Parts: sequence; structure tokens; C-alpha cells
Amino acid sequence: MEIIVHKYGGTSVGTPEKIKSVAQRIKKVREAGFEVVVVVSAMGHTTDELIDLMQKVTDSPDPREYDMLVSTGEQVSAALLAMALQAMGCPAVSLTGGQAGVVTEDIYKKARIKEIKLDRLKKELKSGKVVVITGFQGVDSHGDIITIGRGGSDTSAVAIAAALKAQVCEIFTDVDGVYTTDPRIVPEARKLRYISYEEMLELASLGAQVLHPRSVECASIYNMVIHLRHAQKDIEGTYIMSPERILDSLDAARDKEGGKMEKKEAVRGIALDENIAKLGILNVPDRPGTAAKIFGTLAKEKINVDMIVQSIHSQGTQADLAFTVDRPELKKAVEIAERVAKELQAAGVVADSDVSKVSLVGIGMVSQPGTAAKMFETLSDAGINIQLITTSEIKISCVVKAEQGKKAVQMLHKAFGLEKVA
Amino acid sequence: MEIIVHKYGGTSVGTPEKIKSVAQRIKKVREAGFEVVVVVSAMGHTTDELIDLMQKVTDSPDPREYDMLVSTGEQVSAALLAMALQAMGCPAVSLTGGQAGVVTEDIYKKARIKEIKLDRLKKELKSGKVVVITGFQGVDSHGDIITIGRGGSDTSAVAIAAALKAQVCEIFTDVDGVYTTDPRIVPEARKLRYISYEEMLELASLGAQVLHPRSVECASIYNMVIHLRHAQKDIEGTYIMSPERILDSLDAARDKEGGKMEKKEAVRGIALDENIAKLGILNVPDRPGTAAKIFGTLAKEKINVDMIVQSIHSQGTQADLAFTVDRPELKKAVEIAERVAKELQAAGVVADSDVSKVSLVGIGMVSQPGTAAKMFETLSDAGINIQLITTSEIKISCVVKAEQGKKAVQMLHKAFGLEKVA
Repeated sequence: MEIIVHKYGGTSVGTPEKIKSVAQRIKKVREAGFEVVVVVSAMGHTTDELIDLMQKVTDSPDPREYDMLVSTGEQVSAALLAMALQAMGCPAVSLTGGQAGVVTEDIYKKARIKEIKLDRLKKELKSGKVVVITGFQGVDSHGDIITIGRGGSDTSAVAIAAALKAQVCEIFTDVDGVYTTDPRIVPEARKLRYISYEEMLELASLGAQVLHPRSVECASIYNMVIHLRHAQKDIEGTYIMSPERILDSLDAARDKEGGKMEKKEAVRGIALDENIAKLGILNVPDRPGTAAKIFGTLAKEKINVDMIVQSIHSQGTQADLAFTVDRPELKKAVEIAERVAKELQAAGVVADSDVSKVSLVGIGMVSQPGTAAKMFETLSDAGINIQLITTSEIKISCVVKAEQGKKAVQMLHKAFGLEKVA
Repeated sequence: MEIIVHKYGGTSVGTPEKIKSVAQRIKKVREAGFEVVVVVSAMGHTTDELIDLMQKVTDSPDPREYDMLVSTGEQVSAALLAMALQAMGCPAVSLTGGQAGVVTEDIYKKARIKEIKLDRLKKELKSGKVVVITGFQGVDSHGDIITIGRGGSDTSAVAIAAALKAQVCEIFTDVDGVYTTDPRIVPEARKLRYISYEEMLELASLGAQVLHPRSVECASIYNMVIHLRHAQKDIEGTYIMSPERILDSLDAARDKEGGKMEKKEAVRGIALDENIAKLGILNVPDRPGTAAKIFGTLAKEKINVDMIVQSIHSQGTQADLAFTVDRPELKKAVEIAERVAKELQAAGVVADSDVSKVSLVGIGMVSQPGTAAKMFETLSDAGINIQLITTSEIKISCVVKAEQGKKAVQMLHKAFGLEKVA
């Protein structure tokens, strides 16, 4: 029998009514002849409430106890969902991460999954039950409860799906799928039927927060198809899979629809990140080790640096270094940058939090060299000045003035014809 | 190093502030040179809230999933208490029942504890940590979470104390200790310094709901001293222990206080149970098997029967049977009694919910035969009619009209001089 893995986020199991509605959906899939494994997050804001409670007890919680505490949220929703299924006459059992055989590294709060021991899971499936597993957690080699980082339930689901060689990992959420861009910015934004792992990874880390990036990474390693879809609607969402599979699917669709499918576009999505700030270190002596010194120090202080641009002065002995950080970390980043700038005898540090980052994403861009030029031209025509540029094989990002970010996305969406993307 | 086990109920860990106050107390005991193991209940009304949530999902929850659900409450409080201890510089670790080695029968919701595997517990104690364990739960032979019945945290604490051969099991609650009777009824009621397991068992099952009866039973088997005391006050409460130990303690106190200790009274406490109802089955044919038929049927329907009195008619071929049940179960009990009465060709069933039960408890009563007579005389003098009487070696119970219950307790408390009991 084919296995399907479902994953439901906190919003989808936020109330007893929603839990019952989710149970109905699962029951239908079971009755259609599939074995179903379900991974659940904690109900609604449970995890945040537990953390609030914790902060009233201590400022510096021990990571082990943190994991012990927050892992209870998923246990509650898993038990309730199993009960709801049983109440509908659908045999079910809930398992904690540990009971389900999810073994992690011995690192509290942000472990990676090491392996999934399938004995219990397979036994329960064989006995005809839907198995509901607490997401976001496993046990370490000592049997202690370990969580795998916020949003980790997506990763739990993909890892379990991969271990079980499931047909698909369906991730249910409160959006219809992955869009060409945020529909609140561009009403014509289209839902993508397919997107590759690489594109999804870029979009996820660029602020399209529909899927945890680690889950996409895990899916790409095991070539597991993710179907991202709406928990309350009975429509298809977006399939996240390898470019080869996408081509096969497109070919199949083209055959079926008699060649009506659109030509695959180079640009698949546009992301806007409004949570960034820009720093510049001016006149840095251009000698080996300076970049390592600057970014090594920032990394040691857990400052996440995104874009890095180094421009060489004409005289060739000094360079300006510009980079972006998450906006809430700007103050700390400036302090560190000023300290390092002094050590390096740079001229000084400038900071600007009034910026946004606009990115084009698409694995087809690598073979269409005109994309970057078209992007710059579009922004220029719209009177939008570009402050920083970085490019990768599948992404071009530009930093612009914050107030121009949304306009940039709208212009680019239109220029690249994304309202027609399949 | 001597081990002391603490147990804190839901009220004592009901808020982050209370958790911190409990942590302070534990820290002091640790610093006084004891190894401390702490057993906690769920915070405040957590368990009830989880059950409310559950009832919105299903009317007939699977016991396994019920246990999976409600066991999360203790996990939250255990983790928070461990964090609070750590924040005060006191090394601590929280363990689930399973991690602490509490192995139960394979019976969900009301298992008994089979054994406690001490490896992990001893390892953590040896490393200098206070160990905080979730009460009310363990795991079965399959590693599934099992709860041991409402109020079971008391039993967890005593069982763990017994397994560790702890010096004492201190049970912290929101009362000062065990009183000669309910101080709300008799303001002169005195806190008992000592009470035997048997007396405590009777008082506990008679409505003095300060301690779970199973915990007392477990303590008596392993001769574990329970110290029942107030969580927010730094005063001694009541020691629950064997009669031999009580005598030793009294002798020691007498020696110390120069003979000022009172003579040990036959009656140690008076309980009032206002939650009962009385049933009578009239003219039951007096032949073997009728009582078995009646009470067997009630037991099968889970009706808890307390006092049973059979009175023989003068002609000797018929008897009247009277018994008491919990008041909320009266309706169901009457239905069953009427059905059985018909089968047995008895004359009929009478029921009365307007009654209370007053009980004297004391292990010294067995050697003082005048106690029962004095009780009946006292009630008679107060104009209180006795409807049913049952006696055991350490208890005499009388059913009286509900409105006279409190007065009966007040009169008896005075008549037996309980305001002077030690």
C-alpha cells in the first residue's frame, strides 16, 4: 500500500473544530486506500504561550529543559487528532517523536535528525492505524527529548516521509501554495503548480515564509515530492520537486492539454525582504584576511549576514565593504563593525535601515543571460535606484530604498510576465 | 547522603511565582546537605483544561490517547521547576515518568506502579542535581505513556521515595496538615502531629481529601514516613507513619518535654461526608446469594457502595438491606436496585439523598470499648437520630439527617476532647 505523509501546522490544528476538520480529510485519504502518517505542530500559539510562561521563571533557560517544556505542545495536538480520528471510526494512534523512532543529534533546541527507526511506525501502520506523530522533536541517544528548531515540524514530516519512502509529503498550511510573489503586493500574482527545491529554498530564505528551508533541503536530498496546500480547501497547491520531475510533469500536462502549456519562464518568483538593514565599512585596507576578520567576528556573535559586496577603489589599496543583516540585529552589528573597523584602521562605518531587498528567483535564469539586464532596466525605468546587487546562478537580488520595495516587485512581476507563469 | 523526596501539588506550582517560591524551598534543603528528588503535579487547573479541550473533540476518548494528552501537564511544570532551580544556581534536571524509570502495568488511566528502575535517577543525583520528576505517570512495557489515576502524583512520590529508601516523603499542599476534623466546621479543631497510615486511610476515604488514599497504602507497605505540610509556610505539618514509629516519637517528645505530652486519645479524628445518599431494599428474601446478586450488579455498573447494613426481620425469612452510595450516583443506583429488587421479589426500594455520614477514626478505639456507646449517647443528647451504623476496628460511622451533620461533628469533637489531642 502506498504511504502518504500529511503535515499540519499550528493554525490548521488551532481549535477542536479545526482538528475535527483535519481528521475528516485524513479519513478520506485513508479510505481512498493509502496508509497515512500525520505530523502535527502545536495548536495555535501554544509554543509561544509556553515560552511566555518560561520567561516568567527564568531569563536564561537551560536548553534541555526548554526542549522538555515546549515539546508538550505537539503531544497535546497529536493526542487530540488521534482521538478525533477514532471518534470518526478511523483507527489511529499518536506517537511522540521518541516513540516514532525519530533519533536526533545530542544538541538541544536545534538538533538535526540522525535517523528514523521505523519498527514501531511500521507495526502501527500494518495494524491499519493512521499514525499521528508529534512534529519538531525526537530523542537523543540518552532518551532525552530534543527539539529540532522552530518550524521544524516541516522537516520532521519530510524526514519521516523519506524514511518511509512515501509517495508524497503533503504539507497543509493556511495559504493555497507558492505564489510568483506576495499577492498582497501584486494582486495578479499566480500560484505556481510546480517549483524546484532550489527555487523554493531561495524564496523561503527570502521571506516567503510558507515552508521551513531545512525541510526543502531534506526533501531535495531524498528527492521527496512536497505538496504544499491549503488545510481548509480541497484544491491542489504547489508541488515542490526536482527539475527533472517538473519537466516530466509539464510534458505530461502538455500532452494532455494539447500543447496549451506556457513555455517555462526563466523567472519563477519574486521575493521582497523588508526586514533588512545595510552596513558599509569604508576604506578597508585591501589586504588578505580583512574580510575574514570582519565576517568571522560577526559570525562569532551570531549575526546573520546576507548579501556581501566588496568594491575596489581606483587606487587599489583600499576597498569598501557593504553587507546586509536582519534589521533587529543592526545595532549590535554596527557596534561590532565599528570595533573591527578600528582594529583594521578603516575609515568608518555607515548604516542604513531604510532599505529592502528585491530578488528574482528561477533556475532557468542561468541559461538566459539577459535577465539581470532586464531587471536593472525595469527598475531604472521606474525611477528606482539600486544600492547593492548580488547574483547567484538562480537568483538576482537588489537592495533598494525601503519605500520603493513594493513598487519594484510590481514592476518586475509585470516586466517578466509572471501573471502568465504555470 | 540522605535522600528527601518532595511532592508539590497543582496549587503549589500554579503560577511562575509559586514555582520560584517552591524552588527556594528545595534549594535550602539541598544546601542543608540532602539529596532532593521532587515530584510535581500539573500547574493549577491544567489537567482540567486539557480534559475540556478533549471533550470538544470526542465524547469517548481512547484511554491511551487520554494518557498521552493529560501527561503533558506535569511535563510543563517539571521543566519549569527545573529551570527555576537552575536560575537560582541549583543544578537540576527534569525527567518524565518514563525517563525516571517509573514502570507501570499496561492499563491506561489507572495503572499501578510495577517498579522503579533507578539507574538514571541515581546517576543524576550522583552528579549533584536535584531531580524533578513528573508525577502521575510512567511508561508501560511498550514505552507508552500511562497515567496512574487522578491524584496519583502523591502515589508517584511515595513509590519513588520507597524505591530510593528516602528518609521521608514530604508532601506539600495548601493545608497545614491533618486536622482532628474540618476547621471550617469546628474552629477548635487541632492539627495532628502524628497519624497512623490506617487512620489516614480512613480519613482520606471519608472526605478529608488532603492525600490520595493509594499513596497512604503504598507508604504503609514500605513503612515510608509521609510528612504532609503547607507549601507556602515554614512550619511542620502532620507525620503519617506506623503506630510503632508514632509511639517512639511520642516517647521521645515526652522525654524531651518532661511528661507534658497528652495521653494518646482513642479517637484521633472526625470526618463528615456530605456527598452520600442512602438506599434501602425492603423485604429481601433471606436466602444465600441475594446480597451477592445486589452488590455484584452494582459493582458491575461501577457504582461505589460504602456502608452496608442488613437487618433481619423477626420472622426470619426476609431482611431489609440498606447501603450508601455517592450522591451523584443515586439515580443510577436506584434504577439498578429496582431492577434487582424485582428479580429477587423484594418489596421495593426506598432512597434518601438528604443524609450525611459522621465517622470517628482512631486505632486506639479497638482497645476502648466505650467509644461507640459514648458516640451514640452524645448524638442522642443533641437530639440527632442515627439512621445507619457501621463499625470497624478503627472507625465508627453513623448516617444522620444531612442538616444535622455539622452539629454532630461539633458535639463529638467536644465530647471526645479532640481540641486537646496531640
